[in-house]
Amino acid sequence: MKLLRVGPAGAERPAVLGPDGTAYDLSGRTRDIDGAFLAGLDRAATAALAAEAASGALPRIDLDGLRIGAPVARPGKVVGIGLNYRDHAAEAGAAIPAEPVVFLKPSNTVVGPNDTVLIPRGAEKTDYEAELAVVIGRTARYLESDAEAAAVVAGYTTANDVTERAFQHERGGQWDKGKSAETFTPLGPWLVTADEVGDPQRLPLRLWVNGALRQDGSTADMIFPVLETVRYLSRFMVLEPGDVVVTGTPAGVTLGHPGASFLRPGDIVELEVGDLGRQRQLLGSA
Amino acid sequence: MKLLRVGPAGAERPAVLGPDGTAYDLSGRTRDIDGAFLAGLDRAATAALAAEAASGALPRIDLDGLRIGAPVARPGKVVGIGLNYRDHAAEAGAAIPAEPVVFLKPSNTVVGPNDTVLIPRGAEKTDYEAELAVVIGRTARYLESDAEAAAVVAGYTTANDVTERAFQHERGGQWDKGKSAETFTPLGPWLVTADEVGDPQRLPLRLWVNGALRQDGSTADMIFPVLETVRYLSRFMVLEPGDVVVTGTPAGVTLGHPGASFLRPGDIVELEVGDLGRQRQLLGSA
Repeated sequence: MKLLRVGPAGAERPAVLGPDGTAYDLSGRTRDIDGAFLAGLDRAATAALAAEAASGALPRIDLDGLRIGAPVARPGKVVGIGLNYRDHAAEAGAAIPAEPVVFLKPSNTVVGPNDTVLIPRGAEKTDYEAELAVVIGRTARYLESDAEAAAVVAGYTTANDVTERAFQHERGGQWDKGKSAETFTPLGPWLVTADEVGDPQRLPLRLWVNGALRQDGSTADMIFPVLETVRYLSRFMVLEPGDVVVTGTPAGVTLGHPGASFLRPGDIVELEVGDLGRQRQLLGSA
Repeated sequence: MKLLRVGPAGAERPAVLGPDGTAYDLSGRTRDIDGAFLAGLDRAATAALAAEAASGALPRIDLDGLRIGAPVARPGKVVGIGLNYRDHAAEAGAAIPAEPVVFLKPSNTVVGPNDTVLIPRGAEKTDYEAELAVVIGRTARYLESDAEAAAVVAGYTTANDVTERAFQHERGGQWDKGKSAETFTPLGPWLVTADEVGDPQRLPLRLWVNGALRQDGSTADMIFPVLETVRYLSRFMVLEPGDVVVTGTPAGVTLGHPGASFLRPGDIVELEVGDLGRQRQLLGSA
């Protein structure tokens, strides 16, 4: 099942996609697609809602010209995993990590998949990172197995973990400084429930800048697979319904290509992860 | 004016302290002490509410035996500043930072000032950090002066930025991994409005473990003062009403004293920052 949120920023309506791509309004079922809604979305509830969407009984939404928001209302937290693909660690000049590198992004960096991304004032090296995002559906604390980790995953979506490399690496410590600017976490378009995604370790990731392919990887090349990452994180923090984990980016970021141009106002970034839907961002200035 | 939240975790009521220390129920005025409430708390609203508390016209709350929660409902984000006191940077073996070191803590680490602090499973070096916390009252984006920074500060409170040093420094990068465990950010007891605190750079900070004084510093020794820090942060992220900034700790943490014991279950940590009220935590196990 594909869930989404449509409408103006801050006033999105919850919706579900039917099998033919028609969108149906879920406002009569839930106030929003948020942690509380996801916590109640067990296998039976997912099947019932999917059947309802397939029946066409819900109010139809015409997506034409309608903004798509992030597919989950403001997360309690956004957790990032660094250097989680061998080829990206190599291009970044970093060692292969022995255990996951963990950072955090403020929740108010999250925007819709096609919203404008603002290059911060004073920025020098604004970069993209195509990533598979995990959306948490159950509270997770000291998980002990991949099966337990799978049980807390509501679904998956596409993320661009936008990063200002000068702020990240040249301004005195801790990556968060380069990960926190407004608009720096486009999410969506859809939250695809875990049952429909199947194996999260066989998804292609691709990203283009102004039409030129820059990233072309696969989640098969993750150093720490999704379920291992979720299990690991649950030893260091309590994950909650609605939280988002961005699981790292494959090779091809600008950082790894000396001479390549970092993002500039007017650039267009497009990305997709498997069948989770495509993002398209115009770059602007803060 | 001193604002607080009292009652069971997750079901706190908003309250205000009268000049004689009597607590009055604010449930009739606001649903909670959160970003929306703080955003409306301008000088006139603060004066009116303080006058009402002084008049004794609000319903009285008997604090005896009542739990005190964090004085602000779950923040949108908790931002940390590292190595912000010269003596602490020295004891940590770190250089004096040229600009603020910034990290993030998940909002769900926030607990009340006297709640049990849980040492995580697998922890080796759980440490305390007495800090002045700033509570944001207005949206802040690219602030240009200390006066603009002062205008976005709602008030101040006491924080213990609990940190697992082994997770922070010995587990593969980024401090957040050691800052994110449940119960790791006791806040409160009171949110003291900025008008009542006056100069935030002349507050003593003291912390005791099992009655023995371990930290004895002053916010006068901050490398980056509060308003400069808030101004600086607003260039890297959008601060919002209800956000919390923990501004760094002075010397005296266990990390800086080889041979000293890190925290253990059964230990009692007490701390205070100026007249912002005192915290007392029992250490337990996750």
